[in-house]
Amino acid sequence: MLIKHGINSGFGAIYMLASSPVLRRQQFLIRCLGDYSDQNTNTHQKRMQGIKFTSGASLEADAENVLRAITPTLDPNRHKGQAGKIAVIGGCREYTGAPYFAAISALKIGADLSHVFCTKDAAAVIKSYSPELIVHPVLEESYGVRDDEKRIISGKVLAEVAKWMERFDCLVIGPGLGRDPFLLDCVSKIIKLARQSNVPIVIDGDGLFLVTNSLDLISGYPLAVLTPNVNEYKRLVQKVLSCEVNDEEAHEQLLSLAKRIGGVTMLRKGKSDFISDVKSVSIYGSPRRCGGQGDILSGSVAVFLSWARHAIRDGDSSISSKNPAMLGSIAGSALMRKAASLAFDNKKRSTLTTDIIEYLGRSLEDICPVR
Amino acid sequence: MLIKHGINSGFGAIYMLASSPVLRRQQFLIRCLGDYSDQNTNTHQKRMQGIKFTSGASLEADAENVLRAITPTLDPNRHKGQAGKIAVIGGCREYTGAPYFAAISALKIGADLSHVFCTKDAAAVIKSYSPELIVHPVLEESYGVRDDEKRIISGKVLAEVAKWMERFDCLVIGPGLGRDPFLLDCVSKIIKLARQSNVPIVIDGDGLFLVTNSLDLISGYPLAVLTPNVNEYKRLVQKVLSCEVNDEEAHEQLLSLAKRIGGVTMLRKGKSDFISDVKSVSIYGSPRRCGGQGDILSGSVAVFLSWARHAIRDGDSSISSKNPAMLGSIAGSALMRKAASLAFDNKKRSTLTTDIIEYLGRSLEDICPVR
Repeated sequence: MLIKHGINSGFGAIYMLASSPVLRRQQFLIRCLGDYSDQNTNTHQKRMQGIKFTSGASLEADAENVLRAITPTLDPNRHKGQAGKIAVIGGCREYTGAPYFAAISALKIGADLSHVFCTKDAAAVIKSYSPELIVHPVLEESYGVRDDEKRIISGKVLAEVAKWMERFDCLVIGPGLGRDPFLLDCVSKIIKLARQSNVPIVIDGDGLFLVTNSLDLISGYPLAVLTPNVNEYKRLVQKVLSCEVNDEEAHEQLLSLAKRIGGVTMLRKGKSDFISDVKSVSIYGSPRRCGGQGDILSGSVAVFLSWARHAIRDGDSSISSKNPAMLGSIAGSALMRKAASLAFDNKKRSTLTTDIIEYLGRSLEDICPVR
Repeated sequence: MLIKHGINSGFGAIYMLASSPVLRRQQFLIRCLGDYSDQNTNTHQKRMQGIKFTSGASLEADAENVLRAITPTLDPNRHKGQAGKIAVIGGCREYTGAPYFAAISALKIGADLSHVFCTKDAAAVIKSYSPELIVHPVLEESYGVRDDEKRIISGKVLAEVAKWMERFDCLVIGPGLGRDPFLLDCVSKIIKLARQSNVPIVIDGDGLFLVTNSLDLISGYPLAVLTPNVNEYKRLVQKVLSCEVNDEEAHEQLLSLAKRIGGVTMLRKGKSDFISDVKSVSIYGSPRRCGGQGDILSGSVAVFLSWARHAIRDGDSSISSKNPAMLGSIAGSALMRKAASLAFDNKKRSTLTTDIIEYLGRSLEDICPVR
């Protein structure tokens, strides 16, 4: 059940002290027993004791312990919103499934509120998928806007998003966004606004198309995570490094890419997920490649990034020096892969994204029980 | 399984005679046996015998007994509508989930008919969530109405609602209403109409935003229940009492607030639900704070308030001197908390509002079996 990562230096590196796989497994089991045997003590504090962060080289990390470290305990004294408020920017005339998958995944993991900002055409459809989402029909595509109106409409779109921005713990930008130039221009302004407000952003899908052509939008922003698939990664490498993808030196190239873009966290999706600063999240997973799995991942990373940030703000000493974007990427990748694996065990070739989403809750509960 | 309330004087206070928890529990079990051992007698009358209402101080009430007292027996001689006709006023371009949750919850508890009055944009979406609801696309937001049309449109909206008003047993005003000034102006008129018709109203969400700024709308109306969450309560306290929330004297402040507004019942949601006249409904519940739970509560209170009113009208001597708004609030809070608890046991962190709604029926059946 261990998810292993080779480690490089960077924002922070996660290491386990034990070097033998058998010993590590034993220690892991002991930690699990220690964490949950006493139901009446502060389980979160106990979870933290299980994670050994130290400096060193070529050791391994335990993604499950990262999940335990950043997932908040459920406290009845808390009120709506305190477990996370996520917003997805995406959904247009053509695409409605992707933003739904990202937004509902955030709720299924444990966020309290999940919003979608999309075009009018997309809104009614996304709303109809689930009454749990708050869907704002505010984006506009070129076909509905005259040239002489563009400045005013763009201002209105930005104002609609701006009035909510401070409330969000993380944005997911890109699922089902499409490539309409006017819409992407508005989204560029939304990204700038998020940066000004210090709101973390996860960029996927057509959001990656946008930032690949406008790297300044995210360059130097440590609260940005980019989650490219094979094709999106290829375009990024070509654009930023002016070369082709080199799978023999995959991790080095990923680090170069993150460095050249400037301070962002890269999560390259594939057979194993490669994360800058952490070599890979490689176990669990499913051989099924149905569309939409990347959207689950983006929503998951958004929740865990938010939770990691809160845990660090709360003064959690074991992760205080860590980059929340990196912790969120590890946790999101591990949970998504575990849920995909469980769904595939059950549904085999007919596994769809909706099936995987239904396993997010159980997957997190297996790793990090609420009590 | 007992839900306990400390009691203050007010419209009416519910007391159990027994003071020892063990003795109370025994009496409760004896009552249960007494209620349901003879299946062929009038079970409703027998249920009522179990509840001891008397005056006194610092005693406790049993919310489950309130539920039993006001829930009508299912009599095959009754016809459609007699178990309750609820209407939700809410649903706009931005919000569609909230009115759906309130309206479907009313049906799942046992109301016969559940209506929603919303904007045209929201209507098709809310209809698509469920064929069980009757959805009227009659409300209008400012963006669709010219200034010179407002008086006529406002009159039409009111006429559309007015022709149904006498048929409703309770209105829920606010879930997903939004804050459009023209729409809120129309809703103010709907509230006035409900008062004229003596139709009870439960006010939540943006309905609370409206009445906080126009207290006259509900002041002095004993058939109004206000169900504020932490932020809505804060705004009410600031506006009405010109001070901040004082959690050390929470119940006294709640009573002051209800008194200053004038004769309404307050249900302050939180870790425990505080109800004016009754100290708190504090057991059951879930630590999950996903958006939408308040909408279930508002729909639940609406049904139980209606049922309590009918039970009192039918001459039920054990509750004849009680305030139906208070009884409905106790019952709605207790049932919602029980359903949330059962859903959380099953779904843990991934519990969504839809999951809780699915447990409303079982929760009521556990407390108050149909035979």
